[in-house]
Amino acid sequence: MTRTNGQWRLRSRPEGMISEANFEYKEQELPELQDGEVLIRNLYLAFEPAMRGWVNDEKSYLPPVGIGEVMRSSTVGQIVESKNPDHPVGKLVTGMLGWQQYALIPRDPGPLGSFNAVPDGIPPQRMLSLLGGTGLTAYFGTHAIHPIREGENVLVSGAAGATGSVVAQIARIRGAGKVVGIAGGPEKCAWLTDRAKLDAAIDYKNENIGRRLREEFPNGIDLYFDNVGGEILDTTLLNMAENGRITMCGGISGYNEKELPPGPRNIMQIVVRRLTVRGFILLDHLAQAGEAIRDLSTWSAEGKLIVEEDIQEGFENTVKTFLRLFQGKNLGKQLLKIADPE
Amino acid sequence: MTRTNGQWRLRSRPEGMISEANFEYKEQELPELQDGEVLIRNLYLAFEPAMRGWVNDEKSYLPPVGIGEVMRSSTVGQIVESKNPDHPVGKLVTGMLGWQQYALIPRDPGPLGSFNAVPDGIPPQRMLSLLGGTGLTAYFGTHAIHPIREGENVLVSGAAGATGSVVAQIARIRGAGKVVGIAGGPEKCAWLTDRAKLDAAIDYKNENIGRRLREEFPNGIDLYFDNVGGEILDTTLLNMAENGRITMCGGISGYNEKELPPGPRNIMQIVVRRLTVRGFILLDHLAQAGEAIRDLSTWSAEGKLIVEEDIQEGFENTVKTFLRLFQGKNLGKQLLKIADPE
Repeated sequence: MTRTNGQWRLRSRPEGMISEANFEYKEQELPELQDGEVLIRNLYLAFEPAMRGWVNDEKSYLPPVGIGEVMRSSTVGQIVESKNPDHPVGKLVTGMLGWQQYALIPRDPGPLGSFNAVPDGIPPQRMLSLLGGTGLTAYFGTHAIHPIREGENVLVSGAAGATGSVVAQIARIRGAGKVVGIAGGPEKCAWLTDRAKLDAAIDYKNENIGRRLREEFPNGIDLYFDNVGGEILDTTLLNMAENGRITMCGGISGYNEKELPPGPRNIMQIVVRRLTVRGFILLDHLAQAGEAIRDLSTWSAEGKLIVEEDIQEGFENTVKTFLRLFQGKNLGKQLLKIADPE
Repeated sequence: MTRTNGQWRLRSRPEGMISEANFEYKEQELPELQDGEVLIRNLYLAFEPAMRGWVNDEKSYLPPVGIGEVMRSSTVGQIVESKNPDHPVGKLVTGMLGWQQYALIPRDPGPLGSFNAVPDGIPPQRMLSLLGGTGLTAYFGTHAIHPIREGENVLVSGAAGATGSVVAQIARIRGAGKVVGIAGGPEKCAWLTDRAKLDAAIDYKNENIGRRLREEFPNGIDLYFDNVGGEILDTTLLNMAENGRITMCGGISGYNEKELPPGPRNIMQIVVRRLTVRGFILLDHLAQAGEAIRDLSTWSAEGKLIVEEDIQEGFENTVKTFLRLFQGKNLGKQLLKIADPE
């Protein structure tokens, strides 16, 4: 059976805000499988702010996506053809298979082309949210980097996003004294207090962040988990407790700037307040993924940790769905469903 | 005997670059001592960049110096009158006794008015340099905050200053693989390589820092001890090794700006390169001062650690001597000798 593979490829490197014009849709006929090869049909695509960095032409923790290449992203798919007995047709899998309808996997894929089975009993898209990169990032950031300490006062920015929402709930589960989330708009803030059971939410679009931080943290912030950078990081530095800790996970506020925006003016507060600031990358921690998945699954099954997934539909909406991240539209993990399992 | 006490007092809070106009010289007649009181004649005044922060009207790790108050600074002095049998006349002492010729110490001085004896056999001004705040800061920054690891590649900014010069030499003593210092001008750079025996020096006034860092650290900087902040910190962030560490000790480059300058544009490198950034304040570590003084004294006596003191003379030159710090004129610890012991 001949299949046509729709692909979204990188057409040009964005300068400033990424847009639909930076990608192009192409189709290709898929060839016959050779021995050892596997054909995977993608069912869900996953989106995260860090992908904005992957299309810049600069050295980072992953090589940049090349012009004309399929855009890199995590996906969940199903094996629909196979000439590899280890990987039978029908199996659900997850990997970095990119913005395309099908991924043809060679006999010996590199690390970026490999895939893993979706465990039985787990909704497949969960492998892209709670049990995917963003959920694992939340886990390692709160366990391996700056472990949550009982009773401490925790602030999370991007708190309604895929990573932040899990971080904030883990802080609560791990016995933090107070957990406050920063998010954009009343709907997300209501989700944080009503559904995720945080102690308070700060709406950065409609509230004075500095004043609200002083109200919520009269004794200062012990731990700040930063997903956004920029002005919010700058203001938070003035509200940290002595010997406080900052976990730097991302800086979405600056990802679409043409030139790097200035850093925090209050950076010397790191000295004055004796802070420890740590950055991290998920890739370094994947050897411990089993433990993370076990804990996250347990908390989710027990109802302690709510998973929010924002699932759009239709492969034609791939780029539009990616842009939702930078428009602040997503609540929880941004996903796109592009096919049903066969 | 009636004595006249010359004092340099804070006249106004500086906006931007601090200047002589921000201080005023006043004299006062000293009263008769009461029971329990001690009169100390200051012999040496010590200067450090952090004093610039003490005259700002803002909350910090020490209360600001008030308008009309004697400028706070470390000094070495001699007890010249005493009505306290615990503190006999003639004894050499050190404390935060300020920019004045005499300090009248009440029976129960607060923590900022207390003083300690200068141990026998130590040149008294050494208590303000190697064995004073700046030397101890160097010690704790390289032992308690980010301990030097054998074989690692270390960069120190402000490396010809009182703290930086000690940090760089401790890194060498502790077995760092390569130690490079950044300083301003060929004289300081020659001192770093010829006298302090660093592997290399970078002259930030005459060299391209980014290019020189790439040359000296082809595999990245493992540990950066930052005394200056600003552009040098920003450039260094692009040259850190993965899992590198930054010790933030000070930011002299921004101390005299009217408004806080923007922070480092490259701050997201903390994430990309998985850095750990720690700030610290000497005050938190004084309980371990004995161990620090023992090690520093030993290294100095063995000739492993060279102490550089820039000793100006004359109490009338107090403010001018302070300003030398911000003009980059001092090599090593900036001191002012204002009297000989009696």
